[in-house]
Amino acid sequence: MNQSENFETTMNSELTDLNSPLLQSVINAWIELQSKQPLVHIITNAVASNYVANVLLAAGASPAMIDNPFEAESFASIASALNINLGTPTSEQMQAMQIAAQTAQNLNKPWVLDPVGYGPVLPWRSEMVDQLLQYKPSIIRGNASEISGLAGNQGESRGVDSTLNSAEIYLNAVPLLEHCECVAISGESDFILSKEMNAVIQINGGSYLQPKVTASGCALGALTAAYCAVSESLTAGTVAAHLHFAIAGQKAYEISSSVGSFNVAFLDEIYSLNEDDFNQLANMQIYAL
Amino acid sequence: MNQSENFETTMNSELTDLNSPLLQSVINAWIELQSKQPLVHIITNAVASNYVANVLLAAGASPAMIDNPFEAESFASIASALNINLGTPTSEQMQAMQIAAQTAQNLNKPWVLDPVGYGPVLPWRSEMVDQLLQYKPSIIRGNASEISGLAGNQGESRGVDSTLNSAEIYLNAVPLLEHCECVAISGESDFILSKEMNAVIQINGGSYLQPKVTASGCALGALTAAYCAVSESLTAGTVAAHLHFAIAGQKAYEISSSVGSFNVAFLDEIYSLNEDDFNQLANMQIYAL
Amino acid sequence: MNQSENFETTMNSELTDLNSPLLQSVINAWIELQSKQPLVHIITNAVASNYVANVLLAAGASPAMIDNPFEAESFASIASALNINLGTPTSEQMQAMQIAAQTAQNLNKPWVLDPVGYGPVLPWRSEMVDQLLQYKPSIIRGNASEISGLAGNQGESRGVDSTLNSAEIYLNAVPLLEHCECVAISGESDFILSKEMNAVIQINGGSYLQPKVTASGCALGALTAAYCAVSESLTAGTVAAHLHFAIAGQKAYEISSSVGSFNVAFLDEIYSLNEDDFNQLANMQIYAL
Repeated sequence: MNQSENFETTMNSELTDLNSPLLQSVINAWIELQSKQPLVHIITNAVASNYVANVLLAAGASPAMIDNPFEAESFASIASALNINLGTPTSEQMQAMQIAAQTAQNLNKPWVLDPVGYGPVLPWRSEMVDQLLQYKPSIIRGNASEISGLAGNQGESRGVDSTLNSAEIYLNAVPLLEHCECVAISGESDFILSKEMNAVIQINGGSYLQPKVTASGCALGALTAAYCAVSESLTAGTVAAHLHFAIAGQKAYEISSSVGSFNVAFLDEIYSLNEDDFNQLANMQIYAL
Repeated sequence: MNQSENFETTMNSELTDLNSPLLQSVINAWIELQSKQPLVHIITNAVASNYVANVLLAAGASPAMIDNPFEAESFASIASALNINLGTPTSEQMQAMQIAAQTAQNLNKPWVLDPVGYGPVLPWRSEMVDQLLQYKPSIIRGNASEISGLAGNQGESRGVDSTLNSAEIYLNAVPLLEHCECVAISGESDFILSKEMNAVIQINGGSYLQPKVTASGCALGALTAAYCAVSESLTAGTVAAHLHFAIAGQKAYEISSSVGSFNVAFLDEIYSLNEDDFNQLANMQIYAL
Repeated sequence: MNQSENFETTMNSELTDLNSPLLQSVINAWIELQSKQPLVHIITNAVASNYVANVLLAAGASPAMIDNPFEAESFASIASALNINLGTPTSEQMQAMQIAAQTAQNLNKPWVLDPVGYGPVLPWRSEMVDQLLQYKPSIIRGNASEISGLAGNQGESRGVDSTLNSAEIYLNAVPLLEHCECVAISGESDFILSKEMNAVIQINGGSYLQPKVTASGCALGALTAAYCAVSESLTAGTVAAHLHFAIAGQKAYEISSSVGSFNVAFLDEIYSLNEDDFNQLANMQIYAL
């Protein structure tokens, strides 16, 4: 499969008529998030945990980091969605991940897999990610290097930051739709592959400062789980989380242009974002796959 | 015991003459905290650790997160107070908690137990909390769901956030005074049950944004330990920590009304709070139990 | 050896002619850091991890917290530098530290050892620090209490904060140069002992608020590793990290005088610092050892 050819083809068949209904589903998901404040079970890394919890609280969800194997089943059973992130796994977290993922699958709860650092340099977590695929994550979310590697391509992995461009690799990720309903690839633009819509949604916005704030991607994965707990469809939930981030990032950058204050403004905007912001600032295009 | 009857009764017997001496003890505790900068041994969760350390440093204490079982005894022996929080326990932390709590009891050091997530959905930590009660915590601190559950009531636990109202359940917590000197229940108003005073102290203030900042309660528990290390009485120390939070939260909200900037302002106010703030802004009522 | 005598002697032989070339090497290191964005392998504590990652991203490096023993060797092999910090070690982290340190030594990569809390009260980590010395850290970095204790002096350790003054103890640290190329002691002024230059570099700046922000020292250690990955010499890399911190701290304090907003401004200044800032604000003196 020639990637650049396909890229051209895809870009030629924009599905503009799907834009407005999808945005409406996104707004509905945001309204539901505010009213239901879904409980989200999060197993994430040590770098991200505080930030992820604050982003989810600001957005309207109720996060809980339960990452031991002794409580993973009972908690996954009462939570409305699950987020598993492999940033800094411990042996106990690894056990908890398997139990929680299996529970989510059994109970048909949406769950998001974030394969941080996937690639040959980090084999322990990569093998666990491969195993977790059997529990059919609802959404697989990562940066271009991680997603490309997970889809079986020779990745140029370099730690936990991507060396690839989301726009150039998203077609490589299509095979991952065998395992999940959506694949979300973050980058300068985000690309969300939807099995349901047989389409890719490109989301623009945010700020170049976003990758300078650690755990942004981790928080985006957790927020995706939160939205999927309440949205009409997994695609709408995934798009809602990414638009929420893109719009808040764009507004925050208008207020501040250095990383410390940008991050404060970003949390402020995550919290204060409303329906009007979605209607006026959502910047997405939908293409057939 | 009929709760609403008792609630009525309690509200009728406000002990206004105790207000001024208690406030003076609180201010004395704050002065001591600034001059002594007590070393506080903290075993807390992954979400909270950075925030808790920053709050304690801002308030004047010297926090140290020593959460391995191999150093728990020697460190608890030199620290001035201990805070144990069960937010995201690991097996090694669980061992450390038991050793540290036993050491604190043996050496008669104040220690605060924060039973995060207590309830049937999270049995592993809940059993550990039950075990830790044997080491006689000085203060038990939690939200309404956790405290109500720990006091033996059918809790409506939902993750780590409360589904109950502190004002409605505080009388349920009276039996917990068998195990400790004070029970502190955080919420829109905080309620502190004091065995020594045979009274409940209601503290008003703060901001509705406080629960939108993760680990606020965890930081409040650790600050309670810090104050109890230097205060005339455990009640004064517990009240001091809760007033410090309530006043700083109220002042921070005057500066900022979104979560990111509120949290920055809150740390600023925790740091800059002084004697005048206590005198002018402390809002508490004392009722007989 | 009489410390005050030596202190006098040292202060009398300032090597002013070395100042300008060292500053140029520092600026070169900063330029390299921006262009190469070196991958830094970090094994650090739960309190510090988010903050350390944000400081390194703001400064221009690419941090990755890989702290399990199953990936420590492969990751240390591809990273450009390593930072090991013993703030809140777990058993798995302890294994990872040994593997990563050995790998860094074998592959001749710069690595920074930060012996947080070293002293008789915390024996588990202290024994590990003693063991890690065999892998010849490039730089040993700590506060005055930790460095003094590690150099074999009777330390007055008190948790993780120093009770000693860097200016008074730095000569005690000279024996540590047997194990490493530089010893960096943070405090009101920082002192960097350089084996290569046979000199001590005193760095002034920063703000009295810095110790009120938790994990500042941890972030400084990780930033030292990042600079050493790209600098002409280990001394220049170590000095560059300390000057970057001192200048950013000084500028941040001009903007804000309370801890929450100071910390936001500090991250902003870490990010926006440039060549001119080094030239205009670097405040250091070099003395013969």
